[in-house]
Amino acid sequence: MKQEPTTARPKSPLSRRAWIAAASGGAASGLVLTRLDALKGTAQEIASPQDPTRVPGRFVSEVGSRAPGERPRRLVRSLALSSSSRTPLHELEGTITPSDLHFERHHAGVPEIRAEDHELLVHGMVERPMVFRMSDLRRYPRLSRICFIECSGNGGGAYNRNRMPTEVSVQQLDGLLSTSEWTGVMLSTILREVGVRPGASWILAEGSDAAVMGRSVPLAKAMDDAMLAFGQNGDAIRPEQGYPVRLLLPGWEGNAQVKWLRRIEVSDRPTMTRDETSRYTDPLKDGTARQFSFVMDAKSVITFPSYPHVLPEAGWWEIEGLAWTGRGRIVRVEVSADGGRNWTDATLQRPVLPMSTVRFRHLWRWNGQETILLSRATDETGYRQPTVHQLWDARGEGTAYHHNHQRAWKVAGDGAVTFGLGDLV
Amino acid sequence: MKQEPTTARPKSPLSRRAWIAAASGGAASGLVLTRLDALKGTAQEIASPQDPTRVPGRFVSEVGSRAPGERPRRLVRSLALSSSSRTPLHELEGTITPSDLHFERHHAGVPEIRAEDHELLVHGMVERPMVFRMSDLRRYPRLSRICFIECSGNGGGAYNRNRMPTEVSVQQLDGLLSTSEWTGVMLSTILREVGVRPGASWILAEGSDAAVMGRSVPLAKAMDDAMLAFGQNGDAIRPEQGYPVRLLLPGWEGNAQVKWLRRIEVSDRPTMTRDETSRYTDPLKDGTARQFSFVMDAKSVITFPSYPHVLPEAGWWEIEGLAWTGRGRIVRVEVSADGGRNWTDATLQRPVLPMSTVRFRHLWRWNGQETILLSRATDETGYRQPTVHQLWDARGEGTAYHHNHQRAWKVAGDGAVTFGLGDLV
Repeated sequence: MKQEPTTARPKSPLSRRAWIAAASGGAASGLVLTRLDALKGTAQEIASPQDPTRVPGRFVSEVGSRAPGERPRRLVRSLALSSSSRTPLHELEGTITPSDLHFERHHAGVPEIRAEDHELLVHGMVERPMVFRMSDLRRYPRLSRICFIECSGNGGGAYNRNRMPTEVSVQQLDGLLSTSEWTGVMLSTILREVGVRPGASWILAEGSDAAVMGRSVPLAKAMDDAMLAFGQNGDAIRPEQGYPVRLLLPGWEGNAQVKWLRRIEVSDRPTMTRDETSRYTDPLKDGTARQFSFVMDAKSVITFPSYPHVLPEAGWWEIEGLAWTGRGRIVRVEVSADGGRNWTDATLQRPVLPMSTVRFRHLWRWNGQETILLSRATDETGYRQPTVHQLWDARGEGTAYHHNHQRAWKVAGDGAVTFGLGDLV
Repeated sequence: MKQEPTTARPKSPLSRRAWIAAASGGAASGLVLTRLDALKGTAQEIASPQDPTRVPGRFVSEVGSRAPGERPRRLVRSLALSSSSRTPLHELEGTITPSDLHFERHHAGVPEIRAEDHELLVHGMVERPMVFRMSDLRRYPRLSRICFIECSGNGGGAYNRNRMPTEVSVQQLDGLLSTSEWTGVMLSTILREVGVRPGASWILAEGSDAAVMGRSVPLAKAMDDAMLAFGQNGDAIRPEQGYPVRLLLPGWEGNAQVKWLRRIEVSDRPTMTRDETSRYTDPLKDGTARQFSFVMDAKSVITFPSYPHVLPEAGWWEIEGLAWTGRGRIVRVEVSADGGRNWTDATLQRPVLPMSTVRFRHLWRWNGQETILLSRATDETGYRQPTVHQLWDARGEGTAYHHNHQRAWKVAGDGAVTFGLGDLV
């Protein structure tokens, strides 16, 4: 199999001079910072032999751990019952988010639940109300799919005209986004088992956390691609993600994908829970509000270069990022290296999966001058990620949710990268 | 998006009686063991509230961990410098192997290497010998792909006619197989940078472990899809997998995918290292040997039900497993529930990626009688996973490598599952 990104690369992304210097351990290469270096400085002190071939290594183990020098961390908002922690997007590769770095968002902490004790009640407008234990759920046909989950409030910090940030990382701005290979049973399978009564049109999904998080979901989505997920990236779903079982609604806002799922009630109307009236509703500029705004529209973020990365020299750099949409597949990601005047198609990492993040990459030759980098994604419905002005014009600035406008990074003449949206406002 | 496995399912995989019992917490459901229960017994003692909605949960965290009740472990062969640990395939979901459960196989332990100290020398028949630091490698265009790695000796225990095992798990038999999303730079990119001289036809890949593991690889593979991988499942490659960089040869035997890669020498012949003369060569029945048998042929294993699972009752069960091939894509997996007399196509989990494991599933109604389960995979070249007899006829029984013959699991009348190949010999 040929890999297209390679065939697309220019003859030499770095000057020959830099390479000879690199080879001789000289200054030019000494200046080159890795992404991790740029973030961690030189604070690493690990005892390791200069020549590892001279000493025996350590034995095999039952469970592995990261290299001492590699310490990706979620960014904790606050140690409160209602809080969040964000995925270090600027440190990650590919599309899969390590399970222990998947973002968290919960309203009353992470409940501790034993799988053997957990029960899921399915009732309401059904022929046969039933209680499912995990051992019962596991008897049904299962499937796996790679799928992103994004909090509807993700990117709020990139939105407010009055407190536009500059020294802020993509983790701080958009780290409420993660992607996993989820495994579970289709909700439609379970709904067929209990028998949905005629006239039913919604379900209520309720969690067993102390907030008893509850959201109403249209029956059409529940019967389409909703999943009761108990597997994440190869093994059991993590406690922060809803162990032992969560509702997965591919492409929809995270809060509706109720974790620690204990109850599904089939009904003929939305339940109007606290979580969908006091929260998760978008005020519009005309004074009305948009409720049940479930679908996450197309969005992209550049993860490299981004704050606090520093480009140590002019020349070729690979701009990298993630794009995703709740409406199927991403078909195109464009990158601008001049503040939005000119745009070039980035390369999309295959396979491009529906409802999954897609890694995009674009080789860029930096001339050493200050500039602004932007990306914009287009999905298979033809929808293109809007500018912040298009978003404000359409929705006003009041909403706290669905901030999918284009992100901008300013590269200064000295190579320092900061969040640059302010310049476009 | 519709999910085909669901539409394919029969009307009710479980008897209505069982469900009512389940709903009332009665005996029928009490008897149903989960896969994990079957493996772990009831040894779980976790302090957790009977009603988690009555107590606040724990705070968000920088790095997550598994639920207390979930303890998948690699199976350690021995605490020796040359050893291995095996992935718990019978406990995993989907296709991605958690990085901390990826199998290990090394000849002198896991070296501790600081990324900042590591250098990769590329020399031999090249125009410009160069030394690459990790910060240099990271300047080149990168890509990601989901790819399996299997040790060429995997499944050896399922091979010897004289010591055919029965109480052995798929982890013990075939756990030297794992799948990750790998990220790195194409080796062809680096070879173009140094400039391969005319007449070159092989490379030597050498590791910086205390065994100085070395393997010869044809230049054609190096220029095709070989990757210098420094990312695994979203973050940095794990120490046991070759941190800070390993050679990835999609579809080829694991030992050639040299870890802790420190040197690549371009040459016009194989180097004939100790690791490819004393080891990793297949004796054939005619007394000759097959050397450089790199490609892993099509193979499949049933992961459920398998030893030590126990089926507590007759009725519908979903047979599940993994299939893979080093020659592209798996196009078909067939399952037999009667010792190989009749075969049915299993459902393949989409997307089916080349050089990746594919999850297959097949709903099976067990009549409660003793029987033997088998699976066989066919790849896009038309090659079909052979029976053990076909393998013995073709290669003799002497070889210690490439045991890709069909695996069999015997289900006893009491539901106990054991490795059943003995019955077919």
